[in-house]
Amino acid sequence: MDEHAAATGPVPFTADDFAARRARAAEVGRAAGLAGLLMTPGPDLMYLTGYAPVAITERITMLVIPVTGDPTMIVPKLERPDAKNAVGAAGLQLVDWSDGSDPYEATGRLLAGTGRYAISDSAWAMHVLGLQVELPQSSYVSLTSGLPMLRAIKDAAEVERLAAAAAAADRAYEEILQVRFAGRRETEVAADLAGLLRRFGHSQVDFTVVGSGPNGANPHHEIGERVIEDGDMVVLDFGGLKYGYGSDTTRTVHVGEPTDEEREVHEIVCRAQQAGCDAVQPGIECQDVDRAARAVITEAGFGEFFIHRTGHGIGITTPEPPYMVEGETQPVRPGMCFSVEPGIYLPGRFGVRIEDIVTVLPDGSGRRLNQTPHEMKLVS
Amino acid sequence: MDEHAAATGPVPFTADDFAARRARAAEVGRAAGLAGLLMTPGPDLMYLTGYAPVAITERITMLVIPVTGDPTMIVPKLERPDAKNAVGAAGLQLVDWSDGSDPYEATGRLLAGTGRYAISDSAWAMHVLGLQVELPQSSYVSLTSGLPMLRAIKDAAEVERLAAAAAAADRAYEEILQVRFAGRRETEVAADLAGLLRRFGHSQVDFTVVGSGPNGANPHHEIGERVIEDGDMVVLDFGGLKYGYGSDTTRTVHVGEPTDEEREVHEIVCRAQQAGCDAVQPGIECQDVDRAARAVITEAGFGEFFIHRTGHGIGITTPEPPYMVEGETQPVRPGMCFSVEPGIYLPGRFGVRIEDIVTVLPDGSGRRLNQTPHEMKLVS
Repeated sequence: MDEHAAATGPVPFTADDFAARRARAAEVGRAAGLAGLLMTPGPDLMYLTGYAPVAITERITMLVIPVTGDPTMIVPKLERPDAKNAVGAAGLQLVDWSDGSDPYEATGRLLAGTGRYAISDSAWAMHVLGLQVELPQSSYVSLTSGLPMLRAIKDAAEVERLAAAAAAADRAYEEILQVRFAGRRETEVAADLAGLLRRFGHSQVDFTVVGSGPNGANPHHEIGERVIEDGDMVVLDFGGLKYGYGSDTTRTVHVGEPTDEEREVHEIVCRAQQAGCDAVQPGIECQDVDRAARAVITEAGFGEFFIHRTGHGIGITTPEPPYMVEGETQPVRPGMCFSVEPGIYLPGRFGVRIEDIVTVLPDGSGRRLNQTPHEMKLVS
Repeated sequence: MDEHAAATGPVPFTADDFAARRARAAEVGRAAGLAGLLMTPGPDLMYLTGYAPVAITERITMLVIPVTGDPTMIVPKLERPDAKNAVGAAGLQLVDWSDGSDPYEATGRLLAGTGRYAISDSAWAMHVLGLQVELPQSSYVSLTSGLPMLRAIKDAAEVERLAAAAAAADRAYEEILQVRFAGRRETEVAADLAGLLRRFGHSQVDFTVVGSGPNGANPHHEIGERVIEDGDMVVLDFGGLKYGYGSDTTRTVHVGEPTDEEREVHEIVCRAQQAGCDAVQPGIECQDVDRAARAVITEAGFGEFFIHRTGHGIGITTPEPPYMVEGETQPVRPGMCFSVEPGIYLPGRFGVRIEDIVTVLPDGSGRRLNQTPHEMKLVS
């Protein structure tokens, strides 16, 4: 990202960009044997239309992309003016339905009545159940089952945004090393982190994990009232949105002097993270990234303490496909952007996790978007 | 609500309260011919366990309440410590599943394998589709189809919270009448409203509609950069959460002197709102509330300009069942709390809406929780 983009933000996506995404979605849907795509408010709809309703409610909004023919978006009548104003709605056919009418009948008219449709993972169950009743000859699969990689391959404009978000998160990390840890609550350090993310251009802060001492051993712990002490290992995992795209990075720091065991565990996680990143190349399966990182930890004797997958995709949402997890046989492809974040969690004692976002370049090599050092920094 | 409660907040719900809700849910589920209830993160899970995961992700969390036998909650292994800490989790059986395993197989083991289950409306489509594959002999309906009134009947402790939220919204309305409207942007007045809601104890502001002049004629318009002018009608519709329960009230004010037509339209909406409230009594159908309010507007010749339903339920979410809409034949029952909010929208010109939350008392009478005057206040 050049300095100009840093100062002014990237060039906004246009109506043509969204139309091109919809055309590509139809094409990959056809190749996957689908009759169409049914996209509901949330990241899929944002990706394909730039439209986000003010609230996601029980009133159905759905973009129907048949694999042949033109897409149509059905919206509640009340929300039609907002939908029409979305950048990507120019050139998109809109229909509406009114309170008191049957929204599934109206939506069903946009479907073929047979064939297999992929529906947004997070579409409300009531909507898919409503369509099943309306069109019993159609079948439905989640986007993750039917077309998991729809948003997984990022173009250059998207990678630019992810790199900008990562760079901002890196600056937040560099700054947080300067604050006082010992004697302060996890919530206080988390608030500092949130402030830094915003200072460096995040429009939204999604998580600021500060897992000190034994709290670091719960990988899902976010923050609490625990007062950080001298001698604590502290897991810092934070991210949000900048220019509409996600950041997500983890470093594990130490308050004062670490023990030999703490140094050893940290060093093993560093090596595992490096092994995961080194494994990234087009054609391997996503699970191979997990296996590469996990092998290092298992060989070091800590396999049972690495209790989550190695990584997840990132884009306009975090997490999203592809997942770096045993059983995921999707191939790694250029344009994919995902985290590599192994960890070791010693219950009741401490945890260590290190995470970078990695993108697969067109030439096949992996590139870390997060560039702060992995070494265990000592904080005060 | 007494002064003490106002100062300190209501008595928190206990583990026993949540267990009692689950027992009642099993009972009404059995009466409805269901095999069980499948509740996912969001309001249903909050209502039945007090548990809200840090984020709602693709990882399934589900409370399974069979109509006979004990409920079980399945959670991602990483989130088990958080789930266990929820107030309503005491005495609730927890099971977990790990990344890389099949979550639908694990969840399916908690279901009978046959019978009809009601699933949270907002459960992710991917989860209901995953269960359909796993247990093809079971069937699924949305909670709204199968057991729409699960959260619709509020007990005294819930009505107390809704009344507190309404009282706070009323105070915000009284205060907003004092601010300057003319010459300021809608966004600025909206920010004032949000600040007032927080000042009067809201933990969350969900919407602050400021629809001035022609923007008021779009009932879904929230706020924009339009500068409010002398002579504008301004729809103010705002709410959020206080003590975990919702507020939602609308008043329509006028900047300077209204025209005769503006006075007339406002007065018709007042009468329609009164007629809707007057209709409330146990045993009528929800659609009767809509019909009562709509009749006034239709008879006055503005029927085509009342383009939404008359009301919706409110509780830990807004909106929620019951809906005051044509076709809704659910009976009105004591303990229900819902909005009565007719409106008239003249495209390109102005809109008027008036909204109160009404609760049906044990003796069958309706009681407005919002108590500010309906008359058209003139602001400067």
